[in-house]
Amino acid sequence: MAEARNPGSPIFLPNGTRIFNRLVSFLRKHYVRYGFQEVITPTIYKKALWAKSGHLENYADDMFTVTSTSPSRADAAEDGSPGGEEAEYGLKPMNCPGHCLIFASQRRSYRDLPIRYADFSPLHRNESSGALSGLTRVRRFHQDDGHIFCRPSQIEDEIRRTLDFIRVAYKVLRLGPYRLALSTRPLENYIGSLEDWEQAEGALKRALDACGQTWTLNEGDGAFYGPKIDIILKDSDGKEHQTATIQLDFQLPKRFELEYQSPAPEVEQRGETTTDPELLAVSGPVRPVLVHRAVLGSVERLMALLIEHYDGKWPFWLNPRQGIILTVNDSEPVVNWAQITQKVLLGVTSASSADDDAECLPSNLAIDIDDSPRSLQLKVREAKTKGYGMIIVVGPKNVAKGSVTVDATGIPQAGDQLAEKAEKALEMMPEELKL
Amino acid sequence: MAEARNPGSPIFLPNGTRIFNRLVSFLRKHYVRYGFQEVITPTIYKKALWAKSGHLENYADDMFTVTSTSPSRADAAEDGSPGGEEAEYGLKPMNCPGHCLIFASQRRSYRDLPIRYADFSPLHRNESSGALSGLTRVRRFHQDDGHIFCRPSQIEDEIRRTLDFIRVAYKVLRLGPYRLALSTRPLENYIGSLEDWEQAEGALKRALDACGQTWTLNEGDGAFYGPKIDIILKDSDGKEHQTATIQLDFQLPKRFELEYQSPAPEVEQRGETTTDPELLAVSGPVRPVLVHRAVLGSVERLMALLIEHYDGKWPFWLNPRQGIILTVNDSEPVVNWAQITQKVLLGVTSASSADDDAECLPSNLAIDIDDSPRSLQLKVREAKTKGYGMIIVVGPKNVAKGSVTVDATGIPQAGDQLAEKAEKALEMMPEELKL
Ligand SMILES: [Zn+2]
Ligand SMILES: [Zn+2]
Repeated sequence: MAEARNPGSPIFLPNGTRIFNRLVSFLRKHYVRYGFQEVITPTIYKKALWAKSGHLENYADDMFTVTSTSPSRADAAEDGSPGGEEAEYGLKPMNCPGHCLIFASQRRSYRDLPIRYADFSPLHRNESSGALSGLTRVRRFHQDDGHIFCRPSQIEDEIRRTLDFIRVAYKVLRLGPYRLALSTRPLENYIGSLEDWEQAEGALKRALDACGQTWTLNEGDGAFYGPKIDIILKDSDGKEHQTATIQLDFQLPKRFELEYQSPAPEVEQRGETTTDPELLAVSGPVRPVLVHRAVLGSVERLMALLIEHYDGKWPFWLNPRQGIILTVNDSEPVVNWAQITQKVLLGVTSASSADDDAECLPSNLAIDIDDSPRSLQLKVREAKTKGYGMIIVVGPKNVAKGSVTVDATGIPQAGDQLAEKAEKALEMMPEELKL
Repeated sequence: MAEARNPGSPIFLPNGTRIFNRLVSFLRKHYVRYGFQEVITPTIYKKALWAKSGHLENYADDMFTVTSTSPSRADAAEDGSPGGEEAEYGLKPMNCPGHCLIFASQRRSYRDLPIRYADFSPLHRNESSGALSGLTRVRRFHQDDGHIFCRPSQIEDEIRRTLDFIRVAYKVLRLGPYRLALSTRPLENYIGSLEDWEQAEGALKRALDACGQTWTLNEGDGAFYGPKIDIILKDSDGKEHQTATIQLDFQLPKRFELEYQSPAPEVEQRGETTTDPELLAVSGPVRPVLVHRAVLGSVERLMALLIEHYDGKWPFWLNPRQGIILTVNDSEPVVNWAQITQKVLLGVTSASSADDDAECLPSNLAIDIDDSPRSLQLKVREAKTKGYGMIIVVGPKNVAKGSVTVDATGIPQAGDQLAEKAEKALEMMPEELKL
């Protein structure tokens, strides 16, 4: 839902929120698998932080400024007077600085690495209003943002895992094909040593080779602060969309003075290993490598792609319309029975029994009711058009028999946990008739 | 984690995020039960919206202002020139206006009501920096915010359900006792008719009487826009904390011109019913009643209360430290076996098998590893101090036998789904020895 009062900040209605939450929960499951720890970081930071991160220098136009509406509430400047630059905040366009602060908040050892943080915070980027468009170009969005802090020797393995994560996620979402493009060191104006770049680019190339997909090279096309891999999705019209990204960063760890302790720090910094006991005897600080990565990219944008891609035919687990109960008429017994059926399918039958408090185990199914006083034929047609997975009809006969009439053609036969739950829930109904 | 760069905006580290997410997921399950639909609403809105909602008038000091850092990106004013009031946003201190916009976005019938929206968006309130303190007084926080739009005749039932929700939630969280206080119409300067107030206060009183708990009356202490019920929690020191609230609101529905269509609109508006066919023959617009309600209140503040309340002894389902695997030494086979054990307990054993993509079913258990080269005795002591639910020890003998050694004293015997999962996961280990 777009709104004049907040251009570029879409509102998610209940169905959109269902999809959004299911995507987030899908990613969270895989975060356990791929070793990401979720964190929640602030929405606004003092301008001083954005100066430190370099965003104020390179990104100011894209950022919103946040100030106290009331001067008396502004934070005091260092000289004690309120207001001024000191009191200004920036609305965050990305999570990286927050994750760097978390990394820097503790002493880290090489044994702790890789450390992988994930974050679903809302982000804001100030696109000019002419560029705004639906869910694809917005000012407020959510990214399945992640940052990996790793040892130089771990780059290759981390990139492999990230490419694997992307492959799995896109397969489950039935997206693709996609192509991979590596952008390497620009000829001039790059930071970090030539050695760092070569070591990192070598690791990225090996990881790309290992992933079993062809990839292309954009020589010299990388950012000044590190090489990157773009994942470019082709939609059904052949149009390309950049969704996932993997971006190495030599700059932020420097700006935030990030470090971890390691034996043989110089060898470690080069991404090499040694067995020389003399070298290993001395420990010291090493700068970690930072990898920014997003699997879905902007969740809003990906949802727009999915809406087009599925064209109403959502996979059952992601469908915000998994089932609907249609009443044959709007008499009280029929509407009541429809509501009971809904509760059974939602897994909340004992809603008001006082002895069942802790064990609230909803099925996680999305089940709606249409008890409007319209003809059944019309309601069935509408439900099919809207893409409901299962259509359940309740009429006077069902009330008498305690049954429901089910059209389960929209439920996949196997391979979907939620669909299995739906089948089980239906078995709990006293009697079941397939249309 | 508090930080100088964002005073009042706490960072949630991984363990804090685990607790936060488990609380949110606990509430979401109950939202299914209590009929709330989750929505996701913008963080910033044009000042015009805050003028309409009355926040700019009554709440300006508490709000942050958001502006374009780059004048060229500012939204144009009505005359086409950039900048000015037109281009200013407010950082939202509450979700109500957003939810009113959603209600108003469709034509609503009396059959659609009650409509209940829930929202976990981050909120910002500009407390003066002197008032900030840890997790209890912050500038950025999350509320388990909800708004109920209902027919006047539904007030009593909605308040009953909300009081029941609060009772169940606090029982599961082992919080309480709490007391209930009803604040009624101020003598002067209130909006809405005397009739509206009396009807609403009567409904609140009946709901309070029905909930089976004693309650007190704060006569004349309500806000000018509606009566409210405060839920005041007593902590172990006897100190009182206002957590949940139920606030009726006659104002916002008026300011946002909210309405729904109903037969016999005048009778309906009074919260009464009629069978008079003449009256029922005519339909017309009725203003819904708005109920603001929060069960936990500020999630940050509630977490601070829980931390104190549990004093390290978290209920297993909420414990961010459900289990830890300790290695007897840091040899490679032992550390490897510890990592395999962790994967089994996390439910992600097939992490890299390509044929198991869609079915990622983590156990949802929080399992850490301590493979530091320190004495086992020390590690066990530290794990107990930190409040781990189950402590699993892995040494060379376990590697040889393919077993683990478990101290499960921290796992509850029954009644916790996650604990049952832990037991089941342990049964999957080839051999199991209890310490
Ligand atoms: Zn980043
Ligand atoms: Zn509210």
